[in-house]
Amino acid sequence: MIRAGIIGATGYAGGELVRILANHKDVKIEWYGSKSYIDQKYDRIYQNMFRIVEDVCKDDDLQKLADQVDVIFTATPQGFLAGILTEEILSKTKIVDLSADYRIQDVAVYEKWYGIEHKSPQFIKEAVYGLCEINRGRITEKTRLVANPGCYTTCSILTAYPMVKEGMIDVDTLIVDAKSGTSGAGRGAKVQNLFCEVNENMKAYGVASHRHTPEIEEQLGYAGNCSVTVSFTPHLVPMNRGILVTEYATLKRKPDGSLPSYEEVRSAYERYYGRERFIRLLDQGVCPETKWVEGSNYVDIGFVIDERTGRIVMMGALDNLVKGAAGQAVQNMNLLFGLPESEGLELVPCFP
Amino acid sequence: MIRAGIIGATGYAGGELVRILANHKDVKIEWYGSKSYIDQKYDRIYQNMFRIVEDVCKDDDLQKLADQVDVIFTATPQGFLAGILTEEILSKTKIVDLSADYRIQDVAVYEKWYGIEHKSPQFIKEAVYGLCEINRGRITEKTRLVANPGCYTTCSILTAYPMVKEGMIDVDTLIVDAKSGTSGAGRGAKVQNLFCEVNENMKAYGVASHRHTPEIEEQLGYAGNCSVTVSFTPHLVPMNRGILVTEYATLKRKPDGSLPSYEEVRSAYERYYGRERFIRLLDQGVCPETKWVEGSNYVDIGFVIDERTGRIVMMGALDNLVKGAAGQAVQNMNLLFGLPESEGLELVPCFP
Amino acid sequence: MIRAGIIGATGYAGGELVRILANHKDVKIEWYGSKSYIDQKYDRIYQNMFRIVEDVCKDDDLQKLADQVDVIFTATPQGFLAGILTEEILSKTKIVDLSADYRIQDVAVYEKWYGIEHKSPQFIKEAVYGLCEINRGRITEKTRLVANPGCYTTCSILTAYPMVKEGMIDVDTLIVDAKSGTSGAGRGAKVQNLFCEVNENMKAYGVASHRHTPEIEEQLGYAGNCSVTVSFTPHLVPMNRGILVTEYATLKRKPDGSLPSYEEVRSAYERYYGRERFIRLLDQGVCPETKWVEGSNYVDIGFVIDERTGRIVMMGALDNLVKGAAGQAVQNMNLLFGLPESEGLELVPCFP
Amino acid sequence: MIRAGIIGATGYAGGELVRILANHKDVKIEWYGSKSYIDQKYDRIYQNMFRIVEDVCKDDDLQKLADQVDVIFTATPQGFLAGILTEEILSKTKIVDLSADYRIQDVAVYEKWYGIEHKSPQFIKEAVYGLCEINRGRITEKTRLVANPGCYTTCSILTAYPMVKEGMIDVDTLIVDAKSGTSGAGRGAKVQNLFCEVNENMKAYGVASHRHTPEIEEQLGYAGNCSVTVSFTPHLVPMNRGILVTEYATLKRKPDGSLPSYEEVRSAYERYYGRERFIRLLDQGVCPETKWVEGSNYVDIGFVIDERTGRIVMMGALDNLVKGAAGQAVQNMNLLFGLPESEGLELVPCFP
Repeated sequence: MIRAGIIGATGYAGGELVRILANHKDVKIEWYGSKSYIDQKYDRIYQNMFRIVEDVCKDDDLQKLADQVDVIFTATPQGFLAGILTEEILSKTKIVDLSADYRIQDVAVYEKWYGIEHKSPQFIKEAVYGLCEINRGRITEKTRLVANPGCYTTCSILTAYPMVKEGMIDVDTLIVDAKSGTSGAGRGAKVQNLFCEVNENMKAYGVASHRHTPEIEEQLGYAGNCSVTVSFTPHLVPMNRGILVTEYATLKRKPDGSLPSYEEVRSAYERYYGRERFIRLLDQGVCPETKWVEGSNYVDIGFVIDERTGRIVMMGALDNLVKGAAGQAVQNMNLLFGLPESEGLELVPCFP
Repeated sequence: MIRAGIIGATGYAGGELVRILANHKDVKIEWYGSKSYIDQKYDRIYQNMFRIVEDVCKDDDLQKLADQVDVIFTATPQGFLAGILTEEILSKTKIVDLSADYRIQDVAVYEKWYGIEHKSPQFIKEAVYGLCEINRGRITEKTRLVANPGCYTTCSILTAYPMVKEGMIDVDTLIVDAKSGTSGAGRGAKVQNLFCEVNENMKAYGVASHRHTPEIEEQLGYAGNCSVTVSFTPHLVPMNRGILVTEYATLKRKPDGSLPSYEEVRSAYERYYGRERFIRLLDQGVCPETKWVEGSNYVDIGFVIDERTGRIVMMGALDNLVKGAAGQAVQNMNLLFGLPESEGLELVPCFP
Repeated sequence: MIRAGIIGATGYAGGELVRILANHKDVKIEWYGSKSYIDQKYDRIYQNMFRIVEDVCKDDDLQKLADQVDVIFTATPQGFLAGILTEEILSKTKIVDLSADYRIQDVAVYEKWYGIEHKSPQFIKEAVYGLCEINRGRITEKTRLVANPGCYTTCSILTAYPMVKEGMIDVDTLIVDAKSGTSGAGRGAKVQNLFCEVNENMKAYGVASHRHTPEIEEQLGYAGNCSVTVSFTPHLVPMNRGILVTEYATLKRKPDGSLPSYEEVRSAYERYYGRERFIRLLDQGVCPETKWVEGSNYVDIGFVIDERTGRIVMMGALDNLVKGAAGQAVQNMNLLFGLPESEGLELVPCFP
Repeated sequence: MIRAGIIGATGYAGGELVRILANHKDVKIEWYGSKSYIDQKYDRIYQNMFRIVEDVCKDDDLQKLADQVDVIFTATPQGFLAGILTEEILSKTKIVDLSADYRIQDVAVYEKWYGIEHKSPQFIKEAVYGLCEINRGRITEKTRLVANPGCYTTCSILTAYPMVKEGMIDVDTLIVDAKSGTSGAGRGAKVQNLFCEVNENMKAYGVASHRHTPEIEEQLGYAGNCSVTVSFTPHLVPMNRGILVTEYATLKRKPDGSLPSYEEVRSAYERYYGRERFIRLLDQGVCPETKWVEGSNYVDIGFVIDERTGRIVMMGALDNLVKGAAGQAVQNMNLLFGLPESEGLELVPCFP
């Protein structure tokens, strides 16, 4: 039995980790860490877990926790883990970090976009970027630190990856228009996230400045073996869960000047995702909908070739709390402990 | 492996049966019956099941189906099953009927409230009313026909049952004010169920005339060993899933004129539900919320004693598609085949 | 031109006052008072008012304000106005108080339900309870202080009033099951009012203890000329606006033992509301829906007589921010200044 | 008093016309035309209009109607008006057509995108494209036929217009990512528009094939005096009203290679919209939100210059039923009859 601890167990991503791990046959949660609810019963914070979780919330003492568990999930604000991580901790336990602290290899880029100093850059190199479908080979039982990707980034990267990797699009034209449910904004008490402010409303935010941008650019840069700069615009949608990305890029034409055919693009996607357990390439003409993946670890991907504009419109959908956070974290944990990658993640999407 | 067939697999309750049975280790669905989508791939009707269900929808030929499966779930309109059920079919397969056809013992009552003639009243006596927590003992491997309770009724009955059974309330004062998510209205294309008609709106409907009324009255009548007539008012709420009932009744006073204490009422509830896997008695002061049971087979129950009015306010919440339909149907199936009652139903509620 | 000031202009009720008064031809808002946003442009707090309101938020200095305006609306927390109201202020300006401070005649009752000491009980007697349809005659150009009714109470009282007034129901059996949109919870940043906590969810709260209870009881007591004790249960609904009440009471039978007919009940309602501008008695068989009154000052009322139980089910719907708060406040203001009662309130409900 | 008739008065756009005209002091609706609800009371179809509209729905006989009114609004399916319009009708009455029949000058383009034959192309030249802010000068008391722009197109065009007109962007790079509330899908009873299918869900549809595309291209082509081909992707959002467009285009650099400054772009927008009553240019850093314009005739526009990518992100929001349909139709009518353009349109946005 893998002993797990969660720091930030009372946020939405932490809560989703608890939901998923409750049905994971190889894991037992030993530590429900929470800054705000110490000593309170966990099931009073999340009444959905009543009679399922009996534990009381503990503090977020990573040092102490490291002695007691095999893996720690940190679902904490940016900078928290970087501020307290030590070699000693990493020598005792594995860490799957759901924050951005170790996602970006270039410290200067991290510090610029996040506006904080990175307190433990020495671990960045060791951290593996946990986008399982792409980096699976590097996430092994020897790995100590996994940087779990962001919700927008997971969706944005996976939707475009085969096109970038195969060099089929002009990456300089890549535009990512992303739409997210409100759970992505977290459980903090802010006026802007009140029901009456979000409901019956839609807006863009963080235009040209959202922190997930450099993460997308770095990973797609690896894929394309080139420098990538994208327009990334997140939007807030009046729903609890789900991210939908609509990505636009100019397709590279073939030597005869024609656009690649549907089949050619499809087969590029199949090459990378054809055997993936959690990526579903939709049939031709089908556009992804966030509801179809809700509660599951799936990413649904579809695309349309627009002959008129020479562009491809790529679309991807996932549940931001599952594949965009807790589900992917568990997928990473499975890899870290040599378990089947889908263990505990056989979650069937819930509709309606 | 239990071979199962579903008639009405493309309605919301049918779809939920598919979702639940997809993770039930002892069942294989052999027949996805649908009147509207024959020969179409099931995963094109419910894209959430893409790559999970590969089958094509078949017709609703119960006769043929009976030869091929061990159990049939009928998630069909009122009158359908009653119109075609035969002794031969029942001799070959078990049936869990999600319609109202065999829920009411008195044919005249059925015909009055449903406005249709009952075509096979001879099976009514044999049918067991499948409210597992109350009728568990009568649902055995010998049972052939289970009348799966309605969504409103399951919630309404279970919330008041211990009080009626113990004679602690004056049943003549019982009022059930019920609120339901919109999936209870089914997947039929009706203007009144369009997004723009339901969203940002709330209304009562079927006031003093809803068909679940006699079902509630009959079952609570058995519990109280008396005739029961209730006010039952359903309301439509702008959410997908969930039923919340708020029930009012005058508490019977003790010989000294005082009301029963919280502890006395609590212990009555504990007597019936203390060991129930799927009924969660909430702590004092906690009111049920539909979101806490979403996607699960739980019923959450709480109550408040109002000293000022001498009434008890009983509240219950469930997911209308799970405990109110498909989940309870699977719970009944488990009983029919001697499986652990909660097999395939270890569904953790999803929040948010 | 009537000069108006609003204290609490940046709460939802205050914002609705601004919206309504923006189109009121006889009023000019001189003071946008706000505790939280002093010196900020009002249209940055409510961007819907961009280019409509140019003013900057001021503080909540009632003393100063009283010198500058003809009427003050106080959309403030309980206890605020009671804590600072003086004879001097009232000698200079009229006040329409949207809080509960002067709604309840019995100070002890106020202090018990609100849990605070009343600091200026000397004004309670003078205050007129501003339920215009009932107290219209007492709201005149001589009136200085109007206690604007609560949202739940306006809906609850008006829905049952004719039945109580005419003695057609047994008031001891009256039960009010109320459902409210989330704007009723205000604009404070609280976890429980976050989008993800409210959306796809429904719950009762304040069971047997909500503060609007004594207000309903007092007013219906005047109507029935008797002591009234009701069960009142508010519920939170995932929508922005709207209150729906479903009220249950046993009809008094006629000497021959029969229930009053639909026509008899109808004509009682017509007697009180037949000429009311803002109360719409719905046709037989039509149940009110909150969406039909959204954005308007209407109260829609319908009822069903249940022969089986001998009860009447009365239903009422209003927009909690309009007739339940700001609209009624303007209606009161119109009366205070001798204007047509519906001036500025010819708001057509918005659907969908 | 202008006598008006509405064909299609029971659709959502027709209903919104009724709502707006109910408060227009110079207009009286003489004819509520409806194919589906002939002879039914209008206020039973839209109960929000109870006690406001007393009329009964009539048929859609344009011939007869033309004799009785000064202006006809046709809120009808594509092809309806083109199929019955005659010179005789136009000689008797003015028409504001909310369908697409006369929006596109090139019949072949219309027939290709709409897949139907145009039955009266002879009127296309006469029709004025009723985007008031741009074509105001051509909508006069002599105009007989106005083609009222589509909802997506109004928002898409106005958001980009100054940039295209001034030649500040490379129009070949223009991408329009649009998000719409569900009322845009109309009131037809379709499974895909049921509450449970739309709620908690988001999707793109009509990718690279939506019918509003050629309309956007034609109008922006006039502005830029060039051929325009755009990527236009509509999305369905779980809200009743509102369209948000996010538009991306590469800014043309100045001779020195630098991007235009915020002030330069701003002043281009001011040049066209600075005095517009219904276009609100938001302050720097403010992104439009659909809720801020709900129920009103406003279009809110903002933009961000992205130095990293050299693109401008332009954002616009409107209420699809008001400025995107009925409001703009009334604005056109005002122009047709020489009334102040904003008559009856002083609608204050409703928040929350």
